[in-house]
Amino acid sequence: MIEAAGNSGKKVAIIMGSNSDRQVMEACSEVLNQFGISSETIVCSAHRMPNKAREFAIQAESLGFEVIIAGAGKAAHLPGVIASYTALPVIGVPIKTEDLQGIDSLLSIVQMPPGVPVATVAINGSKNAALLAVQMLSLNYPDVREKFREYKKKLESGS
Amino acid sequence: MIEAAGNSGKKVAIIMGSNSDRQVMEACSEVLNQFGISSETIVCSAHRMPNKAREFAIQAESLGFEVIIAGAGKAAHLPGVIASYTALPVIGVPIKTEDLQGIDSLLSIVQMPPGVPVATVAINGSKNAALLAVQMLSLNYPDVREKFREYKKKLESGS
Amino acid sequence: MIEAAGNSGKKVAIIMGSNSDRQVMEACSEVLNQFGISSETIVCSAHRMPNKAREFAIQAESLGFEVIIAGAGKAAHLPGVIASYTALPVIGVPIKTEDLQGIDSLLSIVQMPPGVPVATVAINGSKNAALLAVQMLSLNYPDVREKFREYKKKLESGS
Amino acid sequence: MIEAAGNSGKKVAIIMGSNSDRQVMEACSEVLNQFGISSETIVCSAHRMPNKAREFAIQAESLGFEVIIAGAGKAAHLPGVIASYTALPVIGVPIKTEDLQGIDSLLSIVQMPPGVPVATVAINGSKNAALLAVQMLSLNYPDVREKFREYKKKLESGS
Amino acid sequence: MIEAAGNSGKKVAIIMGSNSDRQVMEACSEVLNQFGISSETIVCSAHRMPNKAREFAIQAESLGFEVIIAGAGKAAHLPGVIASYTALPVIGVPIKTEDLQGIDSLLSIVQMPPGVPVATVAINGSKNAALLAVQMLSLNYPDVREKFREYKKKLESGS
Amino acid sequence: MIEAAGNSGKKVAIIMGSNSDRQVMEACSEVLNQFGISSETIVCSAHRMPNKAREFAIQAESLGFEVIIAGAGKAAHLPGVIASYTALPVIGVPIKTEDLQGIDSLLSIVQMPPGVPVATVAINGSKNAALLAVQMLSLNYPDVREKFREYKKKLESGS
Amino acid sequence: MIEAAGNSGKKVAIIMGSNSDRQVMEACSEVLNQFGISSETIVCSAHRMPNKAREFAIQAESLGFEVIIAGAGKAAHLPGVIASYTALPVIGVPIKTEDLQGIDSLLSIVQMPPGVPVATVAINGSKNAALLAVQMLSLNYPDVREKFREYKKKLESGS
Amino acid sequence: MIEAAGNSGKKVAIIMGSNSDRQVMEACSEVLNQFGISSETIVCSAHRMPNKAREFAIQAESLGFEVIIAGAGKAAHLPGVIASYTALPVIGVPIKTEDLQGIDSLLSIVQMPPGVPVATVAINGSKNAALLAVQMLSLNYPDVREKFREYKKKLESGS
Repeated sequence: MIEAAGNSGKKVAIIMGSNSDRQVMEACSEVLNQFGISSETIVCSAHRMPNKAREFAIQAESLGFEVIIAGAGKAAHLPGVIASYTALPVIGVPIKTEDLQGIDSLLSIVQMPPGVPVATVAINGSKNAALLAVQMLSLNYPDVREKFREYKKKLESGS
Repeated sequence: MIEAAGNSGKKVAIIMGSNSDRQVMEACSEVLNQFGISSETIVCSAHRMPNKAREFAIQAESLGFEVIIAGAGKAAHLPGVIASYTALPVIGVPIKTEDLQGIDSLLSIVQMPPGVPVATVAINGSKNAALLAVQMLSLNYPDVREKFREYKKKLESGS
Repeated sequence: MIEAAGNSGKKVAIIMGSNSDRQVMEACSEVLNQFGISSETIVCSAHRMPNKAREFAIQAESLGFEVIIAGAGKAAHLPGVIASYTALPVIGVPIKTEDLQGIDSLLSIVQMPPGVPVATVAINGSKNAALLAVQMLSLNYPDVREKFREYKKKLESGS
Repeated sequence: MIEAAGNSGKKVAIIMGSNSDRQVMEACSEVLNQFGISSETIVCSAHRMPNKAREFAIQAESLGFEVIIAGAGKAAHLPGVIASYTALPVIGVPIKTEDLQGIDSLLSIVQMPPGVPVATVAINGSKNAALLAVQMLSLNYPDVREKFREYKKKLESGS
Repeated sequence: MIEAAGNSGKKVAIIMGSNSDRQVMEACSEVLNQFGISSETIVCSAHRMPNKAREFAIQAESLGFEVIIAGAGKAAHLPGVIASYTALPVIGVPIKTEDLQGIDSLLSIVQMPPGVPVATVAINGSKNAALLAVQMLSLNYPDVREKFREYKKKLESGS
Repeated sequence: MIEAAGNSGKKVAIIMGSNSDRQVMEACSEVLNQFGISSETIVCSAHRMPNKAREFAIQAESLGFEVIIAGAGKAAHLPGVIASYTALPVIGVPIKTEDLQGIDSLLSIVQMPPGVPVATVAINGSKNAALLAVQMLSLNYPDVREKFREYKKKLESGS
Repeated sequence: MIEAAGNSGKKVAIIMGSNSDRQVMEACSEVLNQFGISSETIVCSAHRMPNKAREFAIQAESLGFEVIIAGAGKAAHLPGVIASYTALPVIGVPIKTEDLQGIDSLLSIVQMPPGVPVATVAINGSKNAALLAVQMLSLNYPDVREKFREYKKKLESGS
Repeated sequence: MIEAAGNSGKKVAIIMGSNSDRQVMEACSEVLNQFGISSETIVCSAHRMPNKAREFAIQAESLGFEVIIAGAGKAAHLPGVIASYTALPVIGVPIKTEDLQGIDSLLSIVQMPPGVPVATVAINGSKNAALLAVQMLSLNYPDVREKFREYKKKLESGS
């Protein structure tokens, strides 16, 4: 189902628990694209499709991914489940929910036990998840670092 | 690591995310014992030992378990992870936490997405988790049902 | 008011505190129907009609019910009140409320005292309540168990 | 179990869900005593002893009680259950809990549905529950009213 | 501004902090009317018009009022301020707010310090506030008591 | 009870709802003293002694006070009540509570309705309340402004 | 970017983190205008434009500002960041947010550490922020004080 | 004050708002040390010492730091302030607080606005903050990646 990432370009996986999360999560690939980082989007519930989620997590590194962004709502176990199976850094996006507004998603993602961190961003903070991935990749890719510095300058100038 | 449950007696698995949950969870086996139900206790973090947790969940039914009680704190994914891999009913016990008092554990356990339920009890409600398992087993075991009716009568009489 | 459940088919009672809960709770009977489990729906406030609620709870087992699903909002005592009068397992569905979004319903249902558990699902989690009832009945009915296994497989395949 | 209240003196019933609530609730009888109002204390869980709680509620008025104070913690259904069976005014005292500090008790008591009110006071507000009972009885007993006016004056003077 | 209540009929004052609370609070007078209890509605912010609120509270008893219902939102001091100046029982209605949904109003009204209780009902629970006033007046007025018993019977019958 | 503030020196009134608030609030006078600002401490519950609280608020300006700091816990109406009667700026200190940790005090103080602000600081933030009073008085007193600038420099240097 | 405030008239700076805060914050300048106080509005994110925010804060006093009102939502660091760089009193307005309704903004603004206070008003309480600024300026400007007294009188009269 | 990081070894900066955060944060350097990553600890309040915090953030990259871990409590602006001035990834550790248990710290850190992410871990999650830094550095340092893989294996084996 998930094919090899191919050659050099692919770097970030964007995984989400449900098709209904797409609207929030699509900002991730847009932002990554602006920084010349390729991404692949996977929809896979941690609870309904645990084997698929696990297989993806186990294979992610060999598929060429370097960072994983995982968005989920309510009990929102997806980021933590992915993190439990991979050594790659996992960024968690708590999706706003209809009833508890996302405080459930946030606590389920951020309160990870010692040993398995998830780098959590704001509720519906998909744009910042992508920027955080950019910052992580900047450690290794000078061209990304350069683009991120330009991005920071633009922010500061208000443009 | 987890051996076959043997013959007829074994019915309930009690799994928890950390040794520190033992003090709260030990009420489960005590209560089950009073109803003549055997149980086995497993300590296995969903995040630190995801493969062990998964294997247990996949094998639980063939090992002779009929109900699974899972206790966890903080992000508390264990009950949901177990439920994602087994057709057995899973009862979740949110463990009280030092910082957020267990509201994090509660929301992480109870707010499961459609398709994969976890039967959630009160924060630190290990005794009720066992009683709920007893009620489930009463559907199939007349002797357990009889003992639970007696238990209800004793409650009513205040003894 | 509540008639005998008749012969073999009837298994799950769905009770709710108010007609306004119907929209959320109707998923229960739909799901149960898919698993070949008959159900009966009763609207009965625990507070406005306490005697009717009590009578139902006392008679439920002899009426042929095996599991009770109870949905309620706000103070949401219905699941607990039913559980206090019956030995059957009771599944509680916290209904989302206009002001506190259902956190009131959730806490009122899940925080039951030792001795009388309610198996609580997510806020507005009526579908999962039905699936949990299916899992409980699977312990005793091989045909239901088989159907639930197929359901799990379908979930995993994403269809 | 609960005997007739006898002649003129008895006016307020104090009911609580558990013996562990006694320490908080004992302020009720002390305050009522200061206003010359007799009271009787009953320990009766709404969930473990539903029939006893119901019988008490149904008989309370004929037993000579005029106001009922009910204290309970966690799911805290007792005040609402009592209120569902009696026409007397019911005052609810949310008991502080070990995990959620009483916010669970408060919401379970105060968020009653239309038709069956519970007059809720602060978490652990047993003293105020008694004073509220005094204010209610002041409507009918001039001597109580007089004493309450004196009490208000003392409060104002800081003595 | 507030005239003498006249002769026998007037019994309940309904005070609210803002004209925007009218929509929620109008259920009070409707319910009271059904029980043959007259009421008078006053709009008076505890913070913007403290002297008017105080004067009303001080005079309420001599004006013939027997119970006061006070509705307020946000910091919601009105019920407590009224209670501080009168010996009459005060019923507080927390009004739902746009931002915090009324949890602010609820805590500001219910968490009164020892000495000055406010009988708090649910968020936007104006109907129950009126019913609680009816129950209080039932202690003294046999005709009101009779009507409330009939009301309870109708509730039970579901009509 | 409250005497004239005398001549030039007196500037800040520190009022609290209960003697139990003293331990938290004593930081106010200590800080003010360091800035050469005299203060007077008054203990006066807004609910138990409403007339005294009101009289103080009405007279505060003519007594020579320029800023009022008011600390209170639970329903915590004191700052708002004082603010309703005076044109002076009122700084509110939410006191930590035993049950809800001060979130009740905070919401009761900060969520004031349009027209009557209370300048709210952190839970138990008595030191910052004093510093805020210092900043307000800096607008008018060059010597205070100079001392506050020195204080800021010391903070920056970590001494 | 920020020009000198010119001569005598300018007194209050209104700064906000985002253009989307304008709708809430525009009440500030309107209210200040009614009291004859000039104001200047600056849009400057504390996080995206930290140098601009800092420069403004450092220069604010020399630019003739006497009070600063800062509105921000979510993490809402702007008021605290401004306060860290200036000796002027800073009033914080927590902006209501889409997900957590502003409880995040409120806690991020009000829970400042000892040494650097922010005078916090209600969620979306921009009108009260302006009135608090008026009260602060009243300490120094008799004409403002007079106008504020008239304002209080109008409030009291309900006009 | 902050000297050059020297040559190759130094990689992670650990900054905290107060000396009282040391006990929680010291786990960071211990964990980093186990992975052969050098670290430097700085105590610097974002509010009391804003210039020092800013200077550190601006210089961090040129000082040889590759990742910054920032711990703070209450309003907890430090991680966000650091992130606003640097292009390096910033990991935020919400410190548990005495009153609100760290929910204030968590929301103040995680709810960052679009443009400036902070990678947030659990309340008091200093160990996971270090592990997340390890994961980030693994992207660039094969020896660290290898050690982290071994760490994951040890976790899985329960040793």
